[in-house]
Amino acid sequence: MQVPLWVSNRHIHLSKEDAEALFWEWFGLTKKNDLSQPWQYAAEECVVLRWPKWEIAKVRILWPYRPQTQVEILTADQFKLWVMAPIRLSGDLEWTPWIEIEANWKTLSLTSWVIIAKRHIHMLPEDAEHYWVQNNQIVKIKCEWERWLIFDEVVIRVTDTSKLDTHIDTEEANAAGLANWTTVELLPSDEVRFYEKNH
Amino acid sequence: MQVPLWVSNRHIHLSKEDAEALFWEWFGLTKKNDLSQPWQYAAEECVVLRWPKWEIAKVRILWPYRPQTQVEILTADQFKLWVMAPIRLSGDLEWTPWIEIEANWKTLSLTSWVIIAKRHIHMLPEDAEHYWVQNNQIVKIKCEWERWLIFDEVVIRVTDTSKLDTHIDTEEANAAGLANWTTVELLPSDEVRFYEKNH
Repeated sequence: MQVPLWVSNRHIHLSKEDAEALFWEWFGLTKKNDLSQPWQYAAEECVVLRWPKWEIAKVRILWPYRPQTQVEILTADQFKLWVMAPIRLSGDLEWTPWIEIEANWKTLSLTSWVIIAKRHIHMLPEDAEHYWVQNNQIVKIKCEWERWLIFDEVVIRVTDTSKLDTHIDTEEANAAGLANWTTVELLPSDEVRFYEKNH
Repeated sequence: MQVPLWVSNRHIHLSKEDAEALFWEWFGLTKKNDLSQPWQYAAEECVVLRWPKWEIAKVRILWPYRPQTQVEILTADQFKLWVMAPIRLSGDLEWTPWIEIEANWKTLSLTSWVIIAKRHIHMLPEDAEHYWVQNNQIVKIKCEWERWLIFDEVVIRVTDTSKLDTHIDTEEANAAGLANWTTVELLPSDEVRFYEKNH
């Protein structure tokens, strides 16, 4: 039951409106490199996350556009940005805090919701059938690399357009001694639990 | 089987000779705050880790002195410092790389061995007896906080002067959603394995 792994650093998803507000003069975003999920890419363009005293620069914009603008930070970033972000799946933004983001050499700014990404596995319906799991189910994965560990609280995300892929953030990957292009083991569940929104 | 937790950010231990070379004019180090282990403290003094193009400033010096100067960095720091550090217990420095450290407003510099700390649990001989473990044994710990996980590859360190304490680094704590003053659960071992030096 091996599943490929993809490690995400902090990044931002923009709504179409916000992307146009920030980058209108560039006629949209420019592709830098493909991501693991089909048709998705990291853009050449970045934003700056801003708190009056601190900033985190070069935060990569990921395409495609999303219904709402959302920053996914690392746990360690919270202390630089003075914001406590909840651990959420992408798009689950109710009751999340917001921070200021800047673009175009700091001449343009707007606000974005901010979360820490909850670890998850993208898969197609046929993968879900193969692994005996359901959409939103919480599973465990085993990482037998240099810093062996078992991650609990990994959410299954089933869509018709996914590539099979486990997504964890840089800090989680470092804690496990993992990098991109490795695989992790999906463990059989002893009980069936599901992710609850805004929880 | 709950054990208290202590989270370490990147830090440096100095040999007496190196501390005198760097801070001789200050007549030694100044205590900033106590650490979890008895008689140990974080000093007011810091050093800068240096690679020609990058630096990591404000790296805290921990007292007491050690036989050899040793920096413990985070996995993410490797990419800033252009050094691949092995995951080792403190003091296990054979075949480790070195980096340049600076002090006294960058007027003084010397080199230090560099490692990433291997997660471990300090305990007294009576604790080891209580938990049915031995010095250097590898155990698992369960962290039931917001990002539930089980860390494998945790080394038992038995000495006569320890306080019972699990030590993990900031990235490991963030991956588990843990902070200082929490506890973790020492799991019973199904097989007895030991930490091997320089491995």
